[in-house]
Amino acid sequence: MKTNYRTCTCGELRLQDAGKTVTLSGWVQRVRKMGGMTFVDLRDRYGITQLVFNEDTNANLCYEANKLGREYVIQVIGKVNERYSKNANMPTGDIEIIVETLNVLNQALTPPFTIEDNTDGGDDIRMKYRYLDLRRECVRKNLELRHQMYMTVRNYLSSLGFLEVETPMLIGSTPEGARDFVVPSRMNQGQFYALPQSPQTLKQLLMVAGFDRYFQIVKCFRDEDLRADRQPEFTQIDCEMSFVSQEDIIQTFEGMAKHIFKELKGIEIEGQFLRMPWAEAMRRFGSDKPDMRFEMEFVELMDVLQLGTFAVFDNAKYIGGICASGCAEYTRKQLDQLADFVKRPQIGAKGLVYIKVLEDGSIKSSIDKFYTQEQLTIVANKMNAQPGDLILILSGEDVMKTRKQLCELRLEMGSRLGLRDPNKFALLWVTEFPMFEWSDEEQRLMAMHHPFTHPMEEDIPMLDTAPECVRADAYDMVCNGIEVGGGSIRIHDPKLQAKMFEILGFTPEKAQEQFGFLMNAFKYGAPPHGGLAYGLDRWVSILAGLDSIRDCIAFPKNNSGRDVMLDAPSQIDQKQLDELKLAIQLDK
Amino acid sequence: MKTNYRTCTCGELRLQDAGKTVTLSGWVQRVRKMGGMTFVDLRDRYGITQLVFNEDTNANLCYEANKLGREYVIQVIGKVNERYSKNANMPTGDIEIIVETLNVLNQALTPPFTIEDNTDGGDDIRMKYRYLDLRRECVRKNLELRHQMYMTVRNYLSSLGFLEVETPMLIGSTPEGARDFVVPSRMNQGQFYALPQSPQTLKQLLMVAGFDRYFQIVKCFRDEDLRADRQPEFTQIDCEMSFVSQEDIIQTFEGMAKHIFKELKGIEIEGQFLRMPWAEAMRRFGSDKPDMRFEMEFVELMDVLQLGTFAVFDNAKYIGGICASGCAEYTRKQLDQLADFVKRPQIGAKGLVYIKVLEDGSIKSSIDKFYTQEQLTIVANKMNAQPGDLILILSGEDVMKTRKQLCELRLEMGSRLGLRDPNKFALLWVTEFPMFEWSDEEQRLMAMHHPFTHPMEEDIPMLDTAPECVRADAYDMVCNGIEVGGGSIRIHDPKLQAKMFEILGFTPEKAQEQFGFLMNAFKYGAPPHGGLAYGLDRWVSILAGLDSIRDCIAFPKNNSGRDVMLDAPSQIDQKQLDELKLAIQLDK
Repeated sequence: MKTNYRTCTCGELRLQDAGKTVTLSGWVQRVRKMGGMTFVDLRDRYGITQLVFNEDTNANLCYEANKLGREYVIQVIGKVNERYSKNANMPTGDIEIIVETLNVLNQALTPPFTIEDNTDGGDDIRMKYRYLDLRRECVRKNLELRHQMYMTVRNYLSSLGFLEVETPMLIGSTPEGARDFVVPSRMNQGQFYALPQSPQTLKQLLMVAGFDRYFQIVKCFRDEDLRADRQPEFTQIDCEMSFVSQEDIIQTFEGMAKHIFKELKGIEIEGQFLRMPWAEAMRRFGSDKPDMRFEMEFVELMDVLQLGTFAVFDNAKYIGGICASGCAEYTRKQLDQLADFVKRPQIGAKGLVYIKVLEDGSIKSSIDKFYTQEQLTIVANKMNAQPGDLILILSGEDVMKTRKQLCELRLEMGSRLGLRDPNKFALLWVTEFPMFEWSDEEQRLMAMHHPFTHPMEEDIPMLDTAPECVRADAYDMVCNGIEVGGGSIRIHDPKLQAKMFEILGFTPEKAQEQFGFLMNAFKYGAPPHGGLAYGLDRWVSILAGLDSIRDCIAFPKNNSGRDVMLDAPSQIDQKQLDELKLAIQLDK
Repeated sequence: MKTNYRTCTCGELRLQDAGKTVTLSGWVQRVRKMGGMTFVDLRDRYGITQLVFNEDTNANLCYEANKLGREYVIQVIGKVNERYSKNANMPTGDIEIIVETLNVLNQALTPPFTIEDNTDGGDDIRMKYRYLDLRRECVRKNLELRHQMYMTVRNYLSSLGFLEVETPMLIGSTPEGARDFVVPSRMNQGQFYALPQSPQTLKQLLMVAGFDRYFQIVKCFRDEDLRADRQPEFTQIDCEMSFVSQEDIIQTFEGMAKHIFKELKGIEIEGQFLRMPWAEAMRRFGSDKPDMRFEMEFVELMDVLQLGTFAVFDNAKYIGGICASGCAEYTRKQLDQLADFVKRPQIGAKGLVYIKVLEDGSIKSSIDKFYTQEQLTIVANKMNAQPGDLILILSGEDVMKTRKQLCELRLEMGSRLGLRDPNKFALLWVTEFPMFEWSDEEQRLMAMHHPFTHPMEEDIPMLDTAPECVRADAYDMVCNGIEVGGGSIRIHDPKLQAKMFEILGFTPEKAQEQFGFLMNAFKYGAPPHGGLAYGLDRWVSILAGLDSIRDCIAFPKNNSGRDVMLDAPSQIDQKQLDELKLAIQLDK
C-alpha cells in the first residue's frame, strides 16, 4: 500500500518496527489530551495507529494536534516507538508514533453520527450519509466479506471450467413483464428495452451455443413492491451447465458451498448435504426452506385429537404440534404472547392450543376439558415430550396454510430458545418441487419455477393425466431457513416444451411471440442442460450473520425503492422526455 | 468435466487413452461416408474427436450414423482406438472412437450458415442466430480470452488490496443527462432513475468512505448515436485509489497491463512505458493516442515552405509532413488515392502535396514550380528522407485540425506499409492533458475529462489568469493508437472544486443541485484520491487482434442499438405504460 502519501498503513506496524521513521495517512478517529501529551487515533481501512504529540518537546506541533477534529484527514511523519502501556486489543497496540511532522490533508465537518460500531445514528441518517456509515468497521467488514465471496466463487467456478460471460442488460420485456423495469429507447422511438429479472433465457442460449459451463455474477432487476428485505436491483451468481443431470449440478454446487464456507468462515462441512423432497419438507417443517439448525419437527395429531369433543379440532383438516423443550414453565402471559403471535394477520391462525408436561409428569393443557388425561398422555408420547416440555398445537381447514402457520411458530420458538445461532450453518437441498401451482386469480396452472423447467423423468406420463401431481427436476439450496439458491434441469426437447406451454395455457402463437427466439434456438441442436442461481446479497448476509441484505450492499435503496443519498429517482428535464417521445400522465 | 452424460470431453483423449471405453457428448460437426466406414467429427467447447462406425461390424449402428445431420446433439459410448492415419493438426488427432452405442440427444435443423471459422454467413444472419455464431471456434475463443481477462484483472487487483464493490445501476440522472438511459419508477411516479454512464461519483464516495482501493468490472450505458464500434452498453474496469499521486497510479496500472500481457499473451513488456505529454503527442503525431508501433513522426515545415510562392502554404498556419519509407515509386494513381483519402469529408483536407526523393537522389514533387530544388532538398533533409522515400505534406489554417488530418494520413500509410501488426503491442501513457477545452456551441470552457479532475499542482495559479493554459493531472493509457484507459487525480479540496465549477460556468446553486451529494460528502474528510477506468471491450478486442469490439461481446447490439436476436427494444403493453403513468407521443 506504499504510495507517495504513506510508507505504510495504519494497520501494519508492530513492535519489530520500533525505531523506523514512517509516514502514515488517514482519518482522525479521536483526540485525547492527557497532561502535556496529546494522543490521536489515526484510522484507515487497515486499522488504527496511535499518534503521540508531546508539548514539552514540540509545543507548536502539539498545539496543531489539539486543533484536529474528528474525521480530519491528516498525514504524519514520525518514529515508531514501543508503547509504555500496551493495548492487547488492537493489532498495533504495542507501538505508537512519535510525530515529527503533521500535515492536514483535509478538514472535516463533525459527522452527524459517531463513526463507531456502536453508532448513535439511526437508519435514515446513516443511509443519507452512507459514505460516512461505510467508514464504520462493522459495515466495511460486510463489504470486505462480499469481496471475498466474489473472488472465491469466481476462482472456484473458473477452476472447474466455467466461463464468465456477460449477458446484456438492455434486453426485451418478458411475459412476466409487469415487474420489468423498462428503458425507453431514443433511437427506436416508442420502443423499450427491459432490464433483466434474470439472464435465464440468455444463459440457456449460451448452452445452445455450446459454451458448456457458464457463470456470471450479475445485477438483476425487479420492479415490485418492496416487502421487507427486497431490493429493486439485486445480485445473482448465475450458473448453467450442459450435459448434466440434477445429480451433477448438486455435486458441483455443494462443492462450491463447502469451498465458500471453508474459505470465508473457516468451517469444514463434512459429508453430503441433507436432501429432502419438497413434500417431506412441507410435512415435517411446513416450509420449502426449513431451518435445520434445530429439530422441533411437526407431529400430526389428527388420529388422537379428533377423538375428543373439541369442535375446532373435529372440523380441522390438519392438526399438528411441535414440542418446545423445557418450556412447560411458560407463564399465562408468555402463552398469550405466543397466541397473539400466531393470530397476527401475517400468520392468521385462529388460536393456539398448548399441552404442558410438568416436571412431575402430570399434564396441563388449554383443552383439558375436551380430552381425558389418557388422551393427552398419548399426544405427549407421540410428541416424545419429556417432563418440562411444552407442546404447541395449531389446526385448520387448509392443510398447507396451517402447516405454514405452524412453521412460523416453530421458527419463533427456535428463536426464543436460542436455537437459531447465526454462527451455526445448516445446509440442505430441497428437491422434487411440484411442477405447477394452481392460480385462483388466473384460473390456470402456473409454472412454480419457470416454463423451461424439466419435469422429473418418471412423472412425464402424468403431464397428460394429472399435471398437478407432476414433480419438477428442480432443487433449492437452503441455509438456515433461507433459500440461498435454486435451479432446475431445463427442457431441451422442443416437443416437450410445446406441451408445457399448452398446459400453461399459452396458444402456440402466444408462445411463439413471447419465447420464439428461445424455441427457435432449440431447433438447432440444444444439449441437455440445467443450472441454478444464487442470491448473492442473501448469501453474504447469512455468512456475515446479518438480519438484512441491506447491510452487505454498498449503496442500498430504501423500502420505496429510493436512494436517499443520491436522491434518486428524480424528475428529468422536459427536453429529455421530448427526445424520448414520452409524456407523463399522473393521476389527477 | 465428467458428468452423467460423458466421461470425458471431445478435446482430451490422447494416444495413451487407447483401449479405454469412454462416453462422449457433443455436436455433429460433419459426417463422411468412405466405403463401408462412416466418420463423424464430434465437437464440444473443448475440441473435436473423430467417431468411427463400421458397416461390416455393426450395420444397424452405421445406418443410424449415416442419418445424423450437422449440429445434431449426440451421446456415444465406444472404445478409444489408435488411428491408422493420424492428424497432427488436431490435439485428438492420434485417436478415434470405435462407437458401440449411439444416442441422439437432440436433432437439429440445418443451420443457416456453416459452423466454421471461415463461415459463409454474413454479419446480419450471424447476429440473428448469434447462438449458432458463438459455436464457431474463432468467436468462442474471443469470449474465452475475455473470461481470462476478467479473472486476471480481478486477481491482480485483489492481490494489491483493491476491494471489488458493486455500485448501483439505478442512480440519478447526471448533468450530461442528455445521454443517460432513463428508467421510469413505478413506485415513484413521474420520476426516473438513470443508468450510469460510469460509476465516477460513486467510486469517489467510496474513497470518502475510506475504502482506500476500489475496483469493479461494471456495465455502463450511453444513449448516443452509435458511430462505428460503440455499444449502448459497454464494460469498464473501474478503479480508484486513495492517498496517491499520479505516479502511484501509473505504477500500479502499468504493472497490471504488464501482468495482463504476460498472462494472456505470453508477452513480457520490459522497462517503463513511454510517457508523452499531450502537447508533444499532438505535435509529433497529431493525436492524443498515437500509434507507436511505427515512427513516421511529423516534421513542421513552415520555416522552409513559406519562403516560396505557393499561396496555399503562405496562408497556412501549419505545414507538416511525414516521410513514407520506400514509397517514392508510388504511381500517379496511388498518389491520387491518397489525396482522395485526405479529402474525404471525415478527414477534410483540401489537398495533398508530395515530394519524392528518387533513387538517384533527385527530387520530384507536386509543388516543383513553386520551389527551387534547393528548397525541396532542405525539406527532404529536414524530413531525413532517404532515396526512395515519399514525403507527404498537409497544410491548413487550423493547426490542430491539420495535425489530425496528417495523423489520419500517417495511420493510413502505416497500414499500407504493414507497420500496424495486430500481434505487436506499443503502449504509452499520454499525460498533461489540457484541463479545459473551449466549446463554440456553449460559448464557455468545458472540462476535457470531467469537472472533478485535479489541475496539475504547478498550474493552479493560472486558473485565475489563464485557465485555458491549465493542464490536468490526468493520464490515458494508449495501446496501438487506441485509448484503452484513462483517469485523473480528483479534486478533494471543496474550495478548489467550487472554483472549478465557477470556471465551468456553474452557479453555486446549479453546482449544488447537480453535484450536491458529492460536494457535501467532500466536507466530511475526503482523502486525496484518483483513479482510472479501462474500456474492457476495447482492450479485449486489441488483445484478440479484432477490428471491432462486437466480436468480443456475447450478445452485441447493432448500429441502431438493436439486439436483432432478441428483437429488442420493442413495444410494451398499454397496461405497463399506464402503470408507469407514461404516454408515447410520436412525431406525426
